[in-house]
Amino acid sequence: MSLDALDLRVALPEEGRRRVVIEHVTPDLDNGRYPIKRTPGEVVRVEADIFSDGHDVVAAVLRYRRVASASRPPWLEVAMEPLGNDRWSASFTVDEIGRYEYDIEGWVDHFASWHHALARWVKAGENVTSELLEGALLVRAAAVRATAADDQRSLVSTAALLSSDQPLEERAAAGLSADLVTLMGRAAERRAATRCTTRRVLVERERARFSSWYEMFPRSAGGHPTRSATFREAASRLPEIATMGFDVLYLPPIHPIGRTNRKGRDNTLVAEENDPGSPWAIGGVEGGHTAIEPGLGTIEDFSWFRQQAEQRGLEIALDLAYQVSPDHPYASRHPEWFRRRPDGTLKYAENPPKKYQDIYPFDFESDAWPAMWIELRDVVLFWVGHGVRIFRVDNPHTKTFRFWEWLIADVQSRNQDVIFLAEAFTRPKVMRHLAKIGFTQSYTYFTWRNTKAEIEEYFTELTQTDMQDYFRPNLFTNTPDILHRFLQSGGLPAFRIRLVLAATLGASYGIYSSFELGENRPAGPGSEEYLHSEKYQFRQWPLDSPHHIKDLIAQVNAIRRTQPALQYNHGLRFHLTTHEDLIAYSKIGPGGASRILMVVSLSPDGAREGRVCLSLPDQLIPEHETYTVHDLLSHRVYTWSGPWNFVRLDPELPAHIFAVHRSAAAVDMADESTLPTATAIDDSPER
Amino acid sequence: MSLDALDLRVALPEEGRRRVVIEHVTPDLDNGRYPIKRTPGEVVRVEADIFSDGHDVVAAVLRYRRVASASRPPWLEVAMEPLGNDRWSASFTVDEIGRYEYDIEGWVDHFASWHHALARWVKAGENVTSELLEGALLVRAAAVRATAADDQRSLVSTAALLSSDQPLEERAAAGLSADLVTLMGRAAERRAATRCTTRRVLVERERARFSSWYEMFPRSAGGHPTRSATFREAASRLPEIATMGFDVLYLPPIHPIGRTNRKGRDNTLVAEENDPGSPWAIGGVEGGHTAIEPGLGTIEDFSWFRQQAEQRGLEIALDLAYQVSPDHPYASRHPEWFRRRPDGTLKYAENPPKKYQDIYPFDFESDAWPAMWIELRDVVLFWVGHGVRIFRVDNPHTKTFRFWEWLIADVQSRNQDVIFLAEAFTRPKVMRHLAKIGFTQSYTYFTWRNTKAEIEEYFTELTQTDMQDYFRPNLFTNTPDILHRFLQSGGLPAFRIRLVLAATLGASYGIYSSFELGENRPAGPGSEEYLHSEKYQFRQWPLDSPHHIKDLIAQVNAIRRTQPALQYNHGLRFHLTTHEDLIAYSKIGPGGASRILMVVSLSPDGAREGRVCLSLPDQLIPEHETYTVHDLLSHRVYTWSGPWNFVRLDPELPAHIFAVHRSAAAVDMADESTLPTATAIDDSPER
Repeated sequence: MSLDALDLRVALPEEGRRRVVIEHVTPDLDNGRYPIKRTPGEVVRVEADIFSDGHDVVAAVLRYRRVASASRPPWLEVAMEPLGNDRWSASFTVDEIGRYEYDIEGWVDHFASWHHALARWVKAGENVTSELLEGALLVRAAAVRATAADDQRSLVSTAALLSSDQPLEERAAAGLSADLVTLMGRAAERRAATRCTTRRVLVERERARFSSWYEMFPRSAGGHPTRSATFREAASRLPEIATMGFDVLYLPPIHPIGRTNRKGRDNTLVAEENDPGSPWAIGGVEGGHTAIEPGLGTIEDFSWFRQQAEQRGLEIALDLAYQVSPDHPYASRHPEWFRRRPDGTLKYAENPPKKYQDIYPFDFESDAWPAMWIELRDVVLFWVGHGVRIFRVDNPHTKTFRFWEWLIADVQSRNQDVIFLAEAFTRPKVMRHLAKIGFTQSYTYFTWRNTKAEIEEYFTELTQTDMQDYFRPNLFTNTPDILHRFLQSGGLPAFRIRLVLAATLGASYGIYSSFELGENRPAGPGSEEYLHSEKYQFRQWPLDSPHHIKDLIAQVNAIRRTQPALQYNHGLRFHLTTHEDLIAYSKIGPGGASRILMVVSLSPDGAREGRVCLSLPDQLIPEHETYTVHDLLSHRVYTWSGPWNFVRLDPELPAHIFAVHRSAAAVDMADESTLPTATAIDDSPER
Repeated sequence: MSLDALDLRVALPEEGRRRVVIEHVTPDLDNGRYPIKRTPGEVVRVEADIFSDGHDVVAAVLRYRRVASASRPPWLEVAMEPLGNDRWSASFTVDEIGRYEYDIEGWVDHFASWHHALARWVKAGENVTSELLEGALLVRAAAVRATAADDQRSLVSTAALLSSDQPLEERAAAGLSADLVTLMGRAAERRAATRCTTRRVLVERERARFSSWYEMFPRSAGGHPTRSATFREAASRLPEIATMGFDVLYLPPIHPIGRTNRKGRDNTLVAEENDPGSPWAIGGVEGGHTAIEPGLGTIEDFSWFRQQAEQRGLEIALDLAYQVSPDHPYASRHPEWFRRRPDGTLKYAENPPKKYQDIYPFDFESDAWPAMWIELRDVVLFWVGHGVRIFRVDNPHTKTFRFWEWLIADVQSRNQDVIFLAEAFTRPKVMRHLAKIGFTQSYTYFTWRNTKAEIEEYFTELTQTDMQDYFRPNLFTNTPDILHRFLQSGGLPAFRIRLVLAATLGASYGIYSSFELGENRPAGPGSEEYLHSEKYQFRQWPLDSPHHIKDLIAQVNAIRRTQPALQYNHGLRFHLTTHEDLIAYSKIGPGGASRILMVVSLSPDGAREGRVCLSLPDQLIPEHETYTVHDLLSHRVYTWSGPWNFVRLDPELPAHIFAVHRSAAAVDMADESTLPTATAIDDSPER
């Protein structure tokens, strides 16, 4: 057989001496395809399987940096530590809003390998003359690489000592010294190092993570049954909303509403003269997505309203509903952006057997997609130019994923404060994908999760799987489209239960106005729609009625502001209880800053009592110590001991929000005593 | 604010209309970085999350093809079927040895979307005139794409009918017809389709999956205490090994053994005159890795021996031990391939406090690595040129991963039949990685898994995780280095137990010679080494002793050959038993071809009895039917009913290998009656 040394059927790799393998990096979304998400101050804990062939010692660093669009600053490095079984870990904190990237570099550490072997030879009583000379070579080579003159000097003199004729014990001690390890670490040789795929982190402002939303139709704020309230009138609602403790005020579309095929009250096909139509049927002769519905006022009125809200700590969120009424300027100027019927007319939205004649969807398969994308992006930039930083995106799952990924990246590259909430009530994988491609927050199935088993399963998925790295749930108790059966029949207690669950299970949550009033009448039996839905008419809300839960809302929102544990989604753990209607869960803030235990009765009918098992190791409480739980709602303090303790809840106040303290002596109630007390709660069982 | 329509901070994607997302493809190893493994006739079942925005119907195909080094034939396609929750699946069978690749293509199916909507409009009693005209456009466009003239004609005439003035019912029926669906499927438009990363399949010959190994030192086969047996003498062992039913005969290194620092008997540092040394200390004045140890004969003698073995159905596996003795030609000719000590001498292997002065390891960090790699690859090609197709690789984890990945790919690109078994008894992730980069089979921790819990946990990991796609375990009961404590004290029953476990838990297994004789004396208390290890001396085995389990081995190997279930690793399931010492597991062959239930007593001391729970749905047996279990070892047939049934096993025959039949009437014992019967089993409890 003729052996030709150059006969390669498979090419040699560029660097065959690369020995370290880096695998199974976490967190990771699709091999680095999508960024994970954080807010400033949060930690990114990275793990990976890292190993080499043979018995040499491996070293690895986590490398990270904040990247701007043009610049790539030098990497910062953190040494990775082995966790056992070839799993390694290191963490870094993201300090600033923007985009970070990270990877891992691993290499065979020849000095550490030598050091390890030397220690074992010394321990075995072997003659280490040859080993010390080898070490001298390593140390001398490091001296050449060292950047600091001091380091160079120390390394040169250590190398001389190692290869000197001093007693072996003295030389071995120099080789094994901690100082030398430090010096050699600074001058480590990383020949043929391995790097993993670069991963990215999207760091958004704190409100991306922690927010309390209030949704209202400004047009209903004037109390007129036949005309829109103006922004000037709607501002009268701001003080109360601020007092309830919300920080985001979300307005459904504020643009001109189409006349053609306008829907009437209760979703009828023909509108009466004074019916305002659905604000989601955007666009009229007055303009489209960058215009203001004349009934609300002018762009200046909007800006004034926005400033009024901001003065009360309320940030405006606008609705981004990409669809047009037949009267929208786009329909006539850019018919190429829409589908056509065979007769040449534009095609309205439909989902057989339903028809939505007041709306044309955009055609994302249009040949003119680039111009359309840019125009729709410019709508966002218009409102950003008018001070808006939060957008609640209507039905994002009916537009293409690529469009959103591009739009969000483009807008955030201009203004990193812009937040997008995905209103996608659709299939699980579609919802997750929208979050992966960049949506800051996401609507959830929370509204339909009402039993203990449903809640525990869903929130375990949201907070214990890799969803925690990219999917930020925003738990709405209700929306203009969703009045869940649970709320229809449970009176104010049902509203209290759902309020506390939303506000404590999620770092972000929201209510749609009238929730605080216990509005619970459905459009019909079995319907989740509201009776006389505000989507199609002006509503007059009984704002002065004593029937409400405003105080509880204010109290819960105040607790959220003082308790870091409630401002994050991670750290959620469910606890056993002895009653099916009693759900218990705890949250621990970053670094154990606050430890909060929620116990909620899921039944609006009558009292529930039972025992709650607080897994003590989770709570960092020694097993045989008593501890106190301080109810931040009722201001009662209980002394508990052991894992199982008794609770009783009734519909008047169907929840405990306990601050858990290691012992009574350790309680610092200073911050808690400033919380408002629930008062004047009217608890008529049914409206 | 000035809005410039061309102001892009983030570039538009090349094709913004690509709507379908393909995620979480399985099987997959590191996003397509490594191939999965199969043998001809095996199925690759591919799954993925596939979805689009909106409500349109999605279609997807699995694409696959066999690739040669130069050619890329056209893709073959299989339609993927939805499994629910946006998960899709399709399968293909690999027919030939070689390399395959697969990916997924998904797109929005506009015709199917139209068809779906039409059906719903018709059902709702709506006028579908406009829809039919839309359909006519779709069908007419498809006619242009269709390749077959018949299809074109049919599509053109259907389009004409859809847009005709025939009655609506007739036209709608044409639009909804199954024929049209078929025609449109053949001419499907895949505009802006999405493709996932290409994944690869390495298809190896059947023996890669199913093999029975016998390891022996040919030098001990002559019965001389002071000289090596020759290959001509060693051939006398072949008939018995073949009769026991093995199909791979693995020989430790057959090359010249170094003289310098040769190890003596029982691993002593100084060899006596007639001590042969460890065959792993490769290389002497007679040559290195491509030479034959003179005591065994010549290269011609080896070839003769190999042919003799093959005539008895035994394929030779050679040992690939990449290290050299101080006398190896490489040591003098290529000192640059080894590490040096400061005094200029080559550095022997060490693992403090152990020293291996008879061996120099290769330095895979040598600057001369390319020449060294090619030389080591050529060693393999040399033996391939001499008819060897199986290599058992000694300590692959002490050479670089990149080296093996390249070597295996290069060798297999020349001869696809070559099999590499990784002898890496090291950390779990290193063992897995060696399998990922191309090793055909892998040694395992089986030897150290002896209790029911240990076995169940380990084999669940091997067969139920993604390891099943790339890690083919080869279960050795013992090796020249490993005589487990379990075998040291249990007499022949312990050997029977481990034999049956190895041969039925794994599709590939092996024994090291003397296992059949129950050799169980350790080098010392607590040692796993053999007394008078064959690694360092010639052994004379009591081949004619009545103390053996040869018949059981023959019987078990025969059962393996007739039962497809035992020839695969997948399809393994453990079953409950009522006794800690009774382990039960079943295997189902491909397509349910054979159903085998093993019940093994893990105790060599005394009888064990209890009940075994056969999960009936797994076994495809109706719940209220009796069924038969036919013990292929004892030839007894039992009628069982319900899940729980009684078993009793004793050390004479501590295992059942049951063929499970749905009912007595259905038993076809033809193939089973030809199996050999266990006879002449000598069961003295201790040697």
